[in-house]
Amino acid sequence: MSHVQTTENLKIISMDVKDLRFPTSLHADGSDAMHNDPDYSCAYVTIKIQTGLEGHGLTFTLGRGTEIVVKAIQTLSALVVGQVITDIYREFGSFWRTLTSESQLRWVIWQLLADLEPEQLVSCIDFRYLSNVITKEEALELLKEGREGKEERVNKLLEVGYPCYTTQAGWLGYSNEKISELVEKYLDLGFTAFKLKVGKNLYDDIKRLEFVRNIIGYDKILMVDANQVWEVQEAIDWMAQLAQFKPLWIEEPTSPDDVLGHAQISKALHPLGISVASGEMCCNRVLFKQFLQADAIQYCQIDSARIGGVNEILSVYLMAKKLGVKVCPHAGGVGLCEMVQHLQMWDYVALSGTSEGRFIEYIDQQHEHFVNPTIVENAHYLAPRTPGYNTTFKKEAIENYIYPEGKEWEAMFAKGVFSDPRKHKYWT
Amino acid sequence: MSHVQTTENLKIISMDVKDLRFPTSLHADGSDAMHNDPDYSCAYVTIKIQTGLEGHGLTFTLGRGTEIVVKAIQTLSALVVGQVITDIYREFGSFWRTLTSESQLRWVIWQLLADLEPEQLVSCIDFRYLSNVITKEEALELLKEGREGKEERVNKLLEVGYPCYTTQAGWLGYSNEKISELVEKYLDLGFTAFKLKVGKNLYDDIKRLEFVRNIIGYDKILMVDANQVWEVQEAIDWMAQLAQFKPLWIEEPTSPDDVLGHAQISKALHPLGISVASGEMCCNRVLFKQFLQADAIQYCQIDSARIGGVNEILSVYLMAKKLGVKVCPHAGGVGLCEMVQHLQMWDYVALSGTSEGRFIEYIDQQHEHFVNPTIVENAHYLAPRTPGYNTTFKKEAIENYIYPEGKEWEAMFAKGVFSDPRKHKYWT
Repeated sequence: MSHVQTTENLKIISMDVKDLRFPTSLHADGSDAMHNDPDYSCAYVTIKIQTGLEGHGLTFTLGRGTEIVVKAIQTLSALVVGQVITDIYREFGSFWRTLTSESQLRWVIWQLLADLEPEQLVSCIDFRYLSNVITKEEALELLKEGREGKEERVNKLLEVGYPCYTTQAGWLGYSNEKISELVEKYLDLGFTAFKLKVGKNLYDDIKRLEFVRNIIGYDKILMVDANQVWEVQEAIDWMAQLAQFKPLWIEEPTSPDDVLGHAQISKALHPLGISVASGEMCCNRVLFKQFLQADAIQYCQIDSARIGGVNEILSVYLMAKKLGVKVCPHAGGVGLCEMVQHLQMWDYVALSGTSEGRFIEYIDQQHEHFVNPTIVENAHYLAPRTPGYNTTFKKEAIENYIYPEGKEWEAMFAKGVFSDPRKHKYWT
Repeated sequence: MSHVQTTENLKIISMDVKDLRFPTSLHADGSDAMHNDPDYSCAYVTIKIQTGLEGHGLTFTLGRGTEIVVKAIQTLSALVVGQVITDIYREFGSFWRTLTSESQLRWVIWQLLADLEPEQLVSCIDFRYLSNVITKEEALELLKEGREGKEERVNKLLEVGYPCYTTQAGWLGYSNEKISELVEKYLDLGFTAFKLKVGKNLYDDIKRLEFVRNIIGYDKILMVDANQVWEVQEAIDWMAQLAQFKPLWIEEPTSPDDVLGHAQISKALHPLGISVASGEMCCNRVLFKQFLQADAIQYCQIDSARIGGVNEILSVYLMAKKLGVKVCPHAGGVGLCEMVQHLQMWDYVALSGTSEGRFIEYIDQQHEHFVNPTIVENAHYLAPRTPGYNTTFKKEAIENYIYPEGKEWEAMFAKGVFSDPRKHKYWT
């Protein structure tokens, strides 16, 4: 690759989208009260520029329907291929311009973000519809204040990483035996916070929480997650029954669109010492704005693959900072751990200035398929030191899991484990 | 067709989806502050059952991206083809079962809905996430009360139809000369309510409202529509400047997802005598619930092609009735007038019992392509007397406007009016 960059060699020459699916439903990995058979999947995008450089991105899906996401990306690709990357990013301001220069390759994402000047950062955010909660000027002020003590935090991050909790022991489809085994495993690994799925059967939930509290005791942290199955009043009543087990938060108690409902639940559960967490299904910054405005959530769970990319997520962090709500990113899925670690580390270093009372979710699935997977040690995400957003798949992962023609899928179709969609005339 | 219906001949044997686009951008028809070059389009679905009977449905789009909607429908088709229609609808309750029996063909939709017993109607609605505003039992009560005086209202509907207003004179891209011509035309046709697009330039808006008020006077009704371009405070300030022209409502003043923002605008504009209208972009019943709960809108604009079909829309009507908010459906687009008339007529006959202070939007575009188009006379939608939801296209409309291979499109590509998407390698 030449170090001299011209307009011509920064032109995007191809944008490829792949449908990758992992058969996680076979072992109930990822199962909860709402999603009983997820096959963790993603639409995986490779953009190549004239110089030969490639960039990778993905969005997380649950299997069926990934082909629609692929189609949407193909449609959008018409706006991308043939463009010069510097031109595309110019409208997002100097932040995205920096990404397109050679310095992109020398920096990890969280560090790149953390090293941007406050003025550069705010220039890449669309503040439309947000001005009654935060203006560009207020955001700038918060970022300027956030610089205080940055060096020290970067060093601490490089040394010990960022704290996380595990959801791995608490899938709803797991037996008590398996839960016990996994809780012990994660205790040994240094974890002090555990999340369990709830919401299908109250009696079972009480028994499961009792079972887990008996293993971990009350000095460890326990969260519960209902994955949207309840009505508003039902959530309040159900959680009143689980309050005895001192959960830190109830996650997704009802519809992810119901700001007023979450506010009502928050108000009712506050005297019981239970907070409300949500955000992984929140569709844009305007809904986040309202959840934060209305004290509808006390833990804001941004997701790296749900709203409009890093730019829009930054606006959520800024609103959360202004309104004093803690951000604890949703992760797991495919590649979510790899991505959100960067965002939360940026927040720690450059905005909130603390990791107190915050965690990144950690789920130990599908990391083996990435070239630079997340590394968790002693219940901390280690700060990535490789360039980029950690979303590049290994070549063999693509060969095996591209859907439906990947080797692993062909083998499973042959064995009858799954049925081949190509046999359906509507698969195109 | 046989009158004896067996399980076998009620099987769905095909589901076809077409991408139909009309080049409305050529004359700025449909232009507003947010959408400056819409090509009114739709994904058009034909379902055929074993007996040979066909059913048609559509969803409205603005051109680009229709192929994604088509893809999504193709994916969903796997759940439909091969099913027996009676089995599919069983889970939606007896309402949908009725649709699948032969009686479907003897009734127009609004009359079919109006003739269902309250118990049948509520059984087809998903009340999930709504119970803190309306329960199934409360809905049943409202529907039972709604039966009072039904016969009389059916007769009135058949006689004079349902009142409407026009948006046709007020597209933002139109010149004063064209606006003047169209306002006069619709006054002659008996219209007493007019909607204008606003939001691009305050000075221009003031001039345009003054211009139109000079023609129609102050005894006619004027509404304005900003198509989501403002911040919350900006909407309040802008409308304070337009209040002198006595608009009945401001439609879509800000983000369609901002319940709390709309509530703030409503509160500020109430003393000025201006109401807030929204709903055409509202994504589901949970958001509608909050808009209605929070007095964020005083006119609820359901759309027939945006949320989950008739079933979900019925739940919005029921919540609006309970909370005393008037429903004034959004229409226009492609086929929206044809569909929403049925819903609003059902509401009049069977639920709210009045059309006072309510209108259906009317836009005179793309009706000529339908086999049974909407008929408007003396500013009233005449009650449809033909079977079904009025969504069947004429054969020649399909031949001409199927995208991109329709005759009209091929002709426009040849003349260079539009560019052919098939020349792009990412069109598949």
